[in-house]
Amino acid sequence: MHTDPQPQPVLIRDTSLRDGLQSIARTVPTEVKRAWLRGLHGAGLRAVEVGSFVPPRLLPQLADTAELVAFARTLPGLDVTVLVPNLKGAERALESGAHTMVLPLSASRAHSLANLRKPPEEVVRELGAIRAARDSAGSPCVIEAGISTAFGCTLQGPVPIEAVLALVQAVLDLGIDRVALADTVGYADPAAVARVFEAVRRVAGDRLAGAHFHDTRGLGAANAYAAWSVGVRAFDGCVGGIGGCPHAPGASGNVATEDLAYLFASMGVPTGLDFDALIALRAEIAGWLEGEPLHGAIWRAGLPKTMRPHAAA
Amino acid sequence: MHTDPQPQPVLIRDTSLRDGLQSIARTVPTEVKRAWLRGLHGAGLRAVEVGSFVPPRLLPQLADTAELVAFARTLPGLDVTVLVPNLKGAERALESGAHTMVLPLSASRAHSLANLRKPPEEVVRELGAIRAARDSAGSPCVIEAGISTAFGCTLQGPVPIEAVLALVQAVLDLGIDRVALADTVGYADPAAVARVFEAVRRVAGDRLAGAHFHDTRGLGAANAYAAWSVGVRAFDGCVGGIGGCPHAPGASGNVATEDLAYLFASMGVPTGLDFDALIALRAEIAGWLEGEPLHGAIWRAGLPKTMRPHAAA
Repeated sequence: MHTDPQPQPVLIRDTSLRDGLQSIARTVPTEVKRAWLRGLHGAGLRAVEVGSFVPPRLLPQLADTAELVAFARTLPGLDVTVLVPNLKGAERALESGAHTMVLPLSASRAHSLANLRKPPEEVVRELGAIRAARDSAGSPCVIEAGISTAFGCTLQGPVPIEAVLALVQAVLDLGIDRVALADTVGYADPAAVARVFEAVRRVAGDRLAGAHFHDTRGLGAANAYAAWSVGVRAFDGCVGGIGGCPHAPGASGNVATEDLAYLFASMGVPTGLDFDALIALRAEIAGWLEGEPLHGAIWRAGLPKTMRPHAAA
Repeated sequence: MHTDPQPQPVLIRDTSLRDGLQSIARTVPTEVKRAWLRGLHGAGLRAVEVGSFVPPRLLPQLADTAELVAFARTLPGLDVTVLVPNLKGAERALESGAHTMVLPLSASRAHSLANLRKPPEEVVRELGAIRAARDSAGSPCVIEAGISTAFGCTLQGPVPIEAVLALVQAVLDLGIDRVALADTVGYADPAAVARVFEAVRRVAGDRLAGAHFHDTRGLGAANAYAAWSVGVRAFDGCVGGIGGCPHAPGASGNVATEDLAYLFASMGVPTGLDFDALIALRAEIAGWLEGEPLHGAIWRAGLPKTMRPHAAA
């Protein structure tokens, strides 16, 4: 439907193997995760967060992250991303050969203390040590700072835009490669999204990378559109919308990768994703996670007839 | 979260008693519909589409529309709206004392022929006769032309913007009070919404009234935000997201009134709606329509803590 001659493509990164699985108690066998990864790659995903280098006793579901990185690196053209909570995790990420590591920093002080057991300024210092470790290892690994609770926090309440901007500036001052903003708890609204991303872009320029939205309150697609409308071109999602907070029963989790694929395809924006392959993978995941609720919207009604046979490519 | 000092309010019109119930086979007793209407009014709705003046043999569910108009007129400050398919329906609407009548016109020729059994130009002529009947009756009833399939059609496929603009111009030439655009089949995307509403505003100015979205593919809130971002300030919704097309199993229907209330409240835009009362009414409707699927997103997770205790007012 879009009339622009050549809209700029959008990069969708799937985080179902990390943000999705970390909130689900069961441990998915590594062999199944490999099939999951093959499914994502086959559906056209070229950026996948495959796990997290946290201590296995905290998240046994993600204990096989190094193995998954090794496998993911065999899939052509895939940016293999991992989450790291601290320097120790970053060292493991560097050893693993991951292409990108994401370090979360909370704009909410209360969330930072609860989640990372450190105030934000201490996490910033740790990020400096991570950068130094990456550089002295001569590694090409890209470091992304993920500013979490950028749109509000269940513990602290409102998060002022000044706190977000201060954290972004601190991270940029360290020479970190890129910055993303996350609506960790599903409090973002599209007006705030447009406002905060625009303000961060003024500070970060091209180092503002992406957006990470949850669909907790049905605004995932609206927030993605709002971010896109102010120039954001990279988005995290989870196939099947998994990743709901275990403390909010009935709440859905991350915005579904297939819903993002549909949103952008509906506007004529290329994502490189194969819609039917995503829906097929969603069905496989439903089997692998039997009993866990999946979410998302487009899987029910499917593509409009007007979008066939081009699918969401 | 919004920082504008006094954002302009948005008017949400609930159409659950018309667009919601017309797609559900069972007939809801008039006494229940009165309780439904009281619930809507109590939740702050000041515009409600209470029914449709179609032949009762076609839609027996809506055969009590005249009774409902009479009751709705007793609720203070309520704009009582009905849908009319033709001149005969309009005459019944004028007799009933409804404040507003909506006549649907399809921008898709194929949809017009299938749904109204007339091509669009014949519906335009009928609208002229309706305006003459209203004027000669000396009635203050407002006539709204609802341009359906404005964003695509299941029968015809793509609907060119030129067809929408031509129909809008024809309707304006008749001196019709206002025009609204409807995504009848859930094909709209936010970029198209912004583009088409902007183009129609250039033609219709302040006579462009509102937007009617379905949430068939999860873009209801994104489309409402896109329309709002280009200046639209009136939106249709259905409590509980009812109104799914009976020919698309699993597809949800109209965008949920409570989801619209949350969307705008999250941006600090006043709607006058009481969020808790809407959620309570949704639960009552679930009982009245036992066995019918309800939809919508916000009812699951509820308002963010940051929005308490102000609710969605």
